[in-house]
This record gives sequence, structure tokens and C-alpha cells, in this order.
Amino acid sequence: MPDIIEVSSNKIFSGWQKVYLHESYELGCKMNFGIFLPPQVEEGPQPVIYWLSGLTCTEANFIQKAGAQKYASEQGVILVAPDTSPRNLNILGEDDDWDFGTGAGFYIDATNEPWKKNYRMYSYITKELPALINEKFPVLPYKQSIMGHSMGGHGALICALKNPGLYKTVSAFAPISNPVLCPWGKKAFTGYLGGLETNVETWKDWDATELVKKYNGPPLDILIDQGKEDKFLKDGQLLPENLLSAAKDAGLPLVLRFQEGYDHSYFFISTFIEDHIKHHVKYLKC
Amino acid sequence: MPDIIEVSSNKIFSGWQKVYLHESYELGCKMNFGIFLPPQVEEGPQPVIYWLSGLTCTEANFIQKAGAQKYASEQGVILVAPDTSPRNLNILGEDDDWDFGTGAGFYIDATNEPWKKNYRMYSYITKELPALINEKFPVLPYKQSIMGHSMGGHGALICALKNPGLYKTVSAFAPISNPVLCPWGKKAFTGYLGGLETNVETWKDWDATELVKKYNGPPLDILIDQGKEDKFLKDGQLLPENLLSAAKDAGLPLVLRFQEGYDHSYFFISTFIEDHIKHHVKYLKC
Repeated sequence: MPDIIEVSSNKIFSGWQKVYLHESYELGCKMNFGIFLPPQVEEGPQPVIYWLSGLTCTEANFIQKAGAQKYASEQGVILVAPDTSPRNLNILGEDDDWDFGTGAGFYIDATNEPWKKNYRMYSYITKELPALINEKFPVLPYKQSIMGHSMGGHGALICALKNPGLYKTVSAFAPISNPVLCPWGKKAFTGYLGGLETNVETWKDWDATELVKKYNGPPLDILIDQGKEDKFLKDGQLLPENLLSAAKDAGLPLVLRFQEGYDHSYFFISTFIEDHIKHHVKYLKC
Repeated sequence: MPDIIEVSSNKIFSGWQKVYLHESYELGCKMNFGIFLPPQVEEGPQPVIYWLSGLTCTEANFIQKAGAQKYASEQGVILVAPDTSPRNLNILGEDDDWDFGTGAGFYIDATNEPWKKNYRMYSYITKELPALINEKFPVLPYKQSIMGHSMGGHGALICALKNPGLYKTVSAFAPISNPVLCPWGKKAFTGYLGGLETNVETWKDWDATELVKKYNGPPLDILIDQGKEDKFLKDGQLLPENLLSAAKDAGLPLVLRFQEGYDHSYFFISTFIEDHIKHHVKYLKC
């Protein structure tokens, strides 16, 4: 296993918010991740919740703005917040757009050139990073769950839906719920996977609304919060009603809460993160 | 009264975090300030707590990182977070240092050229801004208090100590408690006020430890939190023990809490901001 290097360490709510750097073999570059260790790790291993951030974010946004450490400290859960893409690869065009390339890995494994060698965020999030976390930190084996925001909400949903049993539960804030049908998703999937015409099944295999239809694993209790004043909801980027409808048809319990007056920001996330952490703890500590 | 322009508005914890822009006559430039309006303003005017930030900050740091809105919403208090200096004045040297000039107004009124025309943060914070806030927002008259961090902790303390009765209480996180004796304070006061030799009384008039000695107003219950692992405490920039000792001699109630393991960051602030807001509410809602 590769080493990890501590980048920063700050005490917060009686626990420790740390950032580490490591060399990722899936992504072929150095990656940062944040980890909050609650005070309960002094007594023994604790469950872990993975947080996936949205477009343009690094590991820092969630750590600094969500206010999640308070609740993780109260509940005794570890929080892991990875970065949102590989970085500094010198791939032509990687820094041209804010919604593709750097900061926009979309938590999928690319199959298209020139991205397929490094843009493997799905394998990084579901395999490489948990193996590293489980080896280096006091994590309870098999007690993990996943949540995220926007692009990261999409990421959390597909990671859970594609790996029945791997995550005890999943939740999301304003997830990109049906990327096959929205502008952000179409752009990213065209770039990372190739055009829709020749790759329609591949596209569907990375889309939560499509994956829900064929989910066939243990019960998965999905919680989604969505601000009613979210600009990207109005722009048709998120499409949570498509996911809700597909989940209903598939008999999967999904609670979609529309929150009056809230937008797409971390101000929205910070308001409801306590609910999400408690939702996860219900399934992580039983 | 000049107009104010809304820069942003986000719902958070059932209230509204807003940022406004206005033309300051004290500072001679455009200034941003943040204001959190709790849901209780729908029922009528509420008390207000002013927050003063530290070196290099703008109005944004507190808004995004302190997590204070949750508690202000629960308690029904307005939070106002101004910027830390005038900006974009084209004064020679204003952007040369991170601890002097832009982002480092030190909440004093400069008397030295070329700063004295614009670097009037003390008058801005104690007079211009409250008058504007009281006119434009549903604030209970005479129900205000003040707190801050580092340079802003110094600012909060001197504003309260120089204006007996104006603020119902005051608190601080890791304040620069005795600027006359620390490197940051000496540099700032030399620049804004002139050298110590010829201006010793002026210097003392902006120093909390000196002001405590001659405070002669209504009871002022001062709460200070200080991280034990704060690098700037170790470097002798903060000197809270000098303030504690002077307050004891003067018979002023001051609680100085040293917090094991905490540093100078917003991770520290976010951990204890609930205590501070409750401390303020005790005096604002009686």
C-alpha cells in the first residue's frame, strides 16, 4: 500500500479534521482527501460516511462549509471527503471548462481517449480509496455509506446502486439524477464515454435513474433533499422527479424532500446535513 | 442615507444570509457586509451581534466557515459581518503586506499619512455601519453586542471598552489582546498612528489591555476562547494573559478559556461559536 502524507490537521468539535495526500494508482496522480476523525475513534473503530462533492470543488469545500463535523462528532462517524477529479495530468483540454475535466470527474470510469487512462473516479471512490482508508484509519469493516452534492449526489447514487450491499445507505443533496437527459451529463458522458448513439448502454450504466430500474440488492433507503429555488433544478440539470418516478416503479424506498426557498449552495447543505448524517447513522450503527 | 445594494441572498437554517454593498463615507470606498436575518425578523425587530474578522479576511470567511447561522436562527439574533479594511484605494503600499493595509484595518482610526483619510474602521464599525443597519433592517434599538477573531477580537474589545453601554456584551476568539506589545500591533500602530516614542498615549488608546485599566462603565461580561495550540499564541502575538491580569486588577469580569488542542482557525471558531452566541443572547434578550 502507498503511504499517505498529512497535509493539515485541525481540532474541531473534539475530533480532528485532517487532509492527506497520496499517490493514486487508479488516477495516476497525487490526490488529496479530507478525513474527519470523531473523538470516539479513541475507543475503537467507527463507521465511515463518504462525501462526494460537486463540480469545481476540491476536498476543501465540504470540510470548510458544510458544518458536518459537529454531527459526526455527536454521532461517532468518520467522514471522508475526496477530491472531484484527477489533477495536473496535462491532458489536452483538461482545464478548458468548469464542467468537464479538472474538478468534474463525474465519478465514472472513462472509456474514451484521452481520458480513459486517468479519469477513473468510480474505481477510485469505490475501491482504491476505501481500501486505503480501511488500512490506515480505525474504520469498522463493512460499515460504510455514501452521500454527495450535485455531481457528487449523482456519484453517491451510482456507487450505491451499482454495488448492492457495499454501502449501508445513500443520500444526496440536489443530485444530477438523470445525467443521460441533462446538459451537464450529456457533455460529460460524450467526452468520457463517447457519443450517445454508439454508447447508449454505457451511458445508462452510469445514470441513477436507469440504474434504479434494475437494482436488485438489499433494501436501500435513499434520502434526497432538493432546494426549490435551486437554479440548476429550474435549468433541467437535476431532474430528481425522474429518479423518484423510477424508484417508485421499482419499489425502492426513496424520500425526495423539496425544501422551500433553498438554493444549490453549501448554505442549503449546512442546513440539512444533520438530517443526512442521522439517516446514515440509522443504518451504520444497527 | 446612502443606498445599499444586495449582492447575494441565500436561505440557511430558515433565515437569510445576505451580502450588501454600500458606499462608505468614513472609508471613502465601496464596502461589502454580510447580514444574517433569522426567521424571527418576520415577527418583529431582533437584537444584533456584530462580528469582526481577522487579518486577510473579507466579509465572506465568517459567513461561510463559522456555522453561526444555526445558533442565530435558534436564538433569534441578527449577525452582521463587515469587511476588515477599506479596499481599492490606490494608496501606495496598501497591498504590499498581508498584515498591514488591505485586509488589515485593525479597527482603529488612523492618524498618520497616507492612511488617515480612509483607514477609519473604528468609526465605520461603531458609528456608520450600525446607523445603516438600524435604518435598513429590523434591529431592536440599543440591543447590540460585538465579537470577533484575532485582529477582530482586538477590534471587538476596543469598540466595547471605548464605548461604555453601547454594546451589551463582548466576546472574542484568540484576540490580539495587547497590540502595543506584539509584532502585529507594533507594525500596524506604527503605520497607522506613527512611531511609539511620540505617540505612546495614542497607541494605548487602541489597546484592550490598556483600556481595561481605565474602563468605567456599566458591567461588561467578557468571554474569550483561546486555542492552546494556536501558533500565534506561542509566537506572542495574542498575549491574552496580559488582558486577563489587567481585567482582574480592574475588577472587570473576564472569562478566558484555554481550549486544549485547538488552533487559530475557523475549525476552532465553529466549535465554540454556539457558546459565544448564547453568551451574547443572555445580555441581548434580558
